[in-house]
Amino acid sequence: MKTDFARNQWYVAAYGTEVSRSLLGRTICGEAIVFYRSANGEPVALADRCVHRQYRLSASALDGDNLVCGYHGFTYDTTGSCVQVPGQRRIPRTARVKRYPVVEQDSFIWVWIGDEAVADPQTIPRAPWLASDEWTTVCGMEPLAARYGLLIDNLLDLSHETYLHGGYIGTPEVAETPITTEVDEDHGIVFVSRHMDDVACPPFYAKSTGIEGRIDRWQDIEYHPPCLYLLHSRVAPVGVQLGSDGDDSRAFHVEVVYAITPETQTSTHDFWAVARDFARDDQGVSDFLAESNRTVVLQDVAALNLLETVIAAEPAGYQELSINIDTGGLAARRMLADQIAAGDSARLPATVTG
Amino acid sequence: MKTDFARNQWYVAAYGTEVSRSLLGRTICGEAIVFYRSANGEPVALADRCVHRQYRLSASALDGDNLVCGYHGFTYDTTGSCVQVPGQRRIPRTARVKRYPVVEQDSFIWVWIGDEAVADPQTIPRAPWLASDEWTTVCGMEPLAARYGLLIDNLLDLSHETYLHGGYIGTPEVAETPITTEVDEDHGIVFVSRHMDDVACPPFYAKSTGIEGRIDRWQDIEYHPPCLYLLHSRVAPVGVQLGSDGDDSRAFHVEVVYAITPETQTSTHDFWAVARDFARDDQGVSDFLAESNRTVVLQDVAALNLLETVIAAEPAGYQELSINIDTGGLAARRMLADQIAAGDSARLPATVTG
Amino acid sequence: MKTDFARNQWYVAAYGTEVSRSLLGRTICGEAIVFYRSANGEPVALADRCVHRQYRLSASALDGDNLVCGYHGFTYDTTGSCVQVPGQRRIPRTARVKRYPVVEQDSFIWVWIGDEAVADPQTIPRAPWLASDEWTTVCGMEPLAARYGLLIDNLLDLSHETYLHGGYIGTPEVAETPITTEVDEDHGIVFVSRHMDDVACPPFYAKSTGIEGRIDRWQDIEYHPPCLYLLHSRVAPVGVQLGSDGDDSRAFHVEVVYAITPETQTSTHDFWAVARDFARDDQGVSDFLAESNRTVVLQDVAALNLLETVIAAEPAGYQELSINIDTGGLAARRMLADQIAAGDSARLPATVTG
Repeated sequence: MKTDFARNQWYVAAYGTEVSRSLLGRTICGEAIVFYRSANGEPVALADRCVHRQYRLSASALDGDNLVCGYHGFTYDTTGSCVQVPGQRRIPRTARVKRYPVVEQDSFIWVWIGDEAVADPQTIPRAPWLASDEWTTVCGMEPLAARYGLLIDNLLDLSHETYLHGGYIGTPEVAETPITTEVDEDHGIVFVSRHMDDVACPPFYAKSTGIEGRIDRWQDIEYHPPCLYLLHSRVAPVGVQLGSDGDDSRAFHVEVVYAITPETQTSTHDFWAVARDFARDDQGVSDFLAESNRTVVLQDVAALNLLETVIAAEPAGYQELSINIDTGGLAARRMLADQIAAGDSARLPATVTG
Repeated sequence: MKTDFARNQWYVAAYGTEVSRSLLGRTICGEAIVFYRSANGEPVALADRCVHRQYRLSASALDGDNLVCGYHGFTYDTTGSCVQVPGQRRIPRTARVKRYPVVEQDSFIWVWIGDEAVADPQTIPRAPWLASDEWTTVCGMEPLAARYGLLIDNLLDLSHETYLHGGYIGTPEVAETPITTEVDEDHGIVFVSRHMDDVACPPFYAKSTGIEGRIDRWQDIEYHPPCLYLLHSRVAPVGVQLGSDGDDSRAFHVEVVYAITPETQTSTHDFWAVARDFARDDQGVSDFLAESNRTVVLQDVAALNLLETVIAAEPAGYQELSINIDTGGLAARRMLADQIAAGDSARLPATVTG
Repeated sequence: MKTDFARNQWYVAAYGTEVSRSLLGRTICGEAIVFYRSANGEPVALADRCVHRQYRLSASALDGDNLVCGYHGFTYDTTGSCVQVPGQRRIPRTARVKRYPVVEQDSFIWVWIGDEAVADPQTIPRAPWLASDEWTTVCGMEPLAARYGLLIDNLLDLSHETYLHGGYIGTPEVAETPITTEVDEDHGIVFVSRHMDDVACPPFYAKSTGIEGRIDRWQDIEYHPPCLYLLHSRVAPVGVQLGSDGDDSRAFHVEVVYAITPETQTSTHDFWAVARDFARDDQGVSDFLAESNRTVVLQDVAALNLLETVIAAEPAGYQELSINIDTGGLAARRMLADQIAAGDSARLPATVTG
């Protein structure tokens, strides 16, 4: 089972807070990239390999906005052009490293791996809660030693919460409740919903919201292949209705955001964030949600790392068995396959930027 | 040098004491298997991979006699049939994992990897001392990072005791004394014997038996390919004869048993046991023999792990040089090759069980 | 990028002090070799694999001048002939391991990997300072997890001192000063020179010589592919001229010697030595130079190990960009390629020895 990457797509490379005047080396879809900010704060992403002797530029140093290779001093500006070489004045014409389009949005640094000519920032899906003043967010990133497809499978089928995350976010009702799945082919989105009425409240929500009894619980997933996964989570004491005018202010809302960024064929950057619209200034709730969600993510990481070893050892052509709960995951796999196949034939966007 | 496995054979998977109401995952001949006991004590062996998303069932939990996958809750009974899936009532017809025949005998759990239709428990070779009330046994298992053939070579040529196990069970006379080798093609057994008269007594036997002077020492090997190796060891003060009626009660007898079970192409489960008919209630002797034999096994493990790295790095077609001492090992290799070649053409046994 | 070895060449296998009456196993150009000294002090090099069951002879023991395999006792003399086997008197005619020609010279044990018929000790390049009474030497060896070509590149382009070794031996002037390169095709030597007038004195030289002001500094490299690299380094207070009679006794001289010995395709033995003609009895200076040079070597090791991971991950056919400073390194690569291509067609030398 070979994993390919949809190259003409935006990927979350880092949180904005990770990119600074220090150099950050990170591999995205198999490409080694060095990230930093220019003196005026703009994020910069360059190929992390000197044209001269291939040294990692991320093991180098900044001189103003320029990057000076730590091995022989080849110096690059923020466009990737070489502006100085050792021992001579003439700079070879071909001395440049690839510059990657980057966009900072919703607290993330997004990077475009493929053909720059078709990189359209307008197509980056949004996760507006993360950088919003009206929500409080905790977040993190865990390295995953497994192919990114396993994380997509994992997140699109939340019935695993019952078994893998019991005591945190899972209760028996999650696995028992059927899902509904919708695919929006025009906008490239997979929707998976599970609405549970009058069910137990797992500790993750009980302790953060203060609800003591049973709840109505909605899980509305919105997956924008390849990278962005949104889980609109609503919990409310039993019977708190959505108003006819759409008012839902008596319920508790959590926006769980994952960015699923392939590092290599068999490893993944697993970005996770939890935004809430309640107890917004309560540091105790923030600490609890951060600790709990990180624990849940690490439970997934352990399971998926194990699964990667199973897959690596499996005979060729091994067939999985899928059931109803997998409808969303299978739709996601198909969309990803289409994105990979589309490759450089992606349509030209109205606006090109970098 | 590719290692293959004789699949239509019984292998020791574990000591009976290792298999319990907790789950034990172990790979045998490249196949991941989960072992446990049903509530009534019967050993169960199932393929250690959920049909749904390939999760390791050994990382799961028991619900009564059923195994509940730790990822999404697919539930299997002791025959490997799936009896429950999440989010729906209908269970797909193909939802089952392979069930392996298992037999508990002579303190071991034996498993059959190949075609269940030809699995005959009557063909399992015996090591009756290990579970006998008339013998006292110490035992263990050491993981070996080397192909199983290297352990077979090792055990069938005990001249290595002189060099690798000097100070424990080796003395110069072992390497100096010629062997006699016999092959019983009908029953598939290799016999290798070395009888030494009036030789030094190595510490392993001197300290456990209390003999202070020189000894007559017999090493009678009986190898039942692929898995079971028996070393009938007799030591006696010089001149203690075997009675004309076969009475040998004045000598000391040790039955050394190895089960050589391939884990992967290049790793092996090295089960070892030492049964004795003397000083049977002396815990000090038990402790000494356990410690000494484990040390000897670990000396072999270190040597064979080193050898595996040599072989892994060797040029293709490298030729070893064999001499008389290798006669038993070469016969064993040939028998194993025949067993591997026989594969599914193995004759149907009189009795089939599982 | 496949790395090959020039086999019909001499390589430094060890310092003479490393080879003793204990066994030393070391892999040279992919061949596992065991080194020891006979009772009369002669170095011996034999293939490190027993003909019987491939055990590492370096994990064995000496019996006088003979090597006794630690597994079954096959015994070899210093020519590699087997003189004893276990359990029988007849020794098979083919029982011998390869003997490698070795020469002890200039404190090194040199070994010849290829065709013994063309091994000429007269062709071994010299580093006479190391074993000279008129020089004081500190030395060491660091294992490098990178292909040997990366170390050759590194040493032939010292402009990297400015960036990788700032604070030790690098100053800005090293990278700024152009080099001159000469290739002596007849004797197979690459010369690279950089003469710097009136420049800063790096700590490595300031602290060891006691010079307080600016210096004239010469770096004259002499590389004898594949293995021996000499850096004739001269530092002197500004204006200390070389006498018209060649007298340079008022300057400080350091002979930096590297032996670059491939271990495997992607690992290298990095031997380094620093000989000086000043402060010869000052242990403080010896300690300082040993510590400083080891630090510099370890900076290179870290950089080249990193580079090896870059190269291992690179797409096939990746093209580096070379500039003037690389002239010496490119000449060295070409000479090495010629040596590799020459292979067994190497001319017969006047004297053959072993």
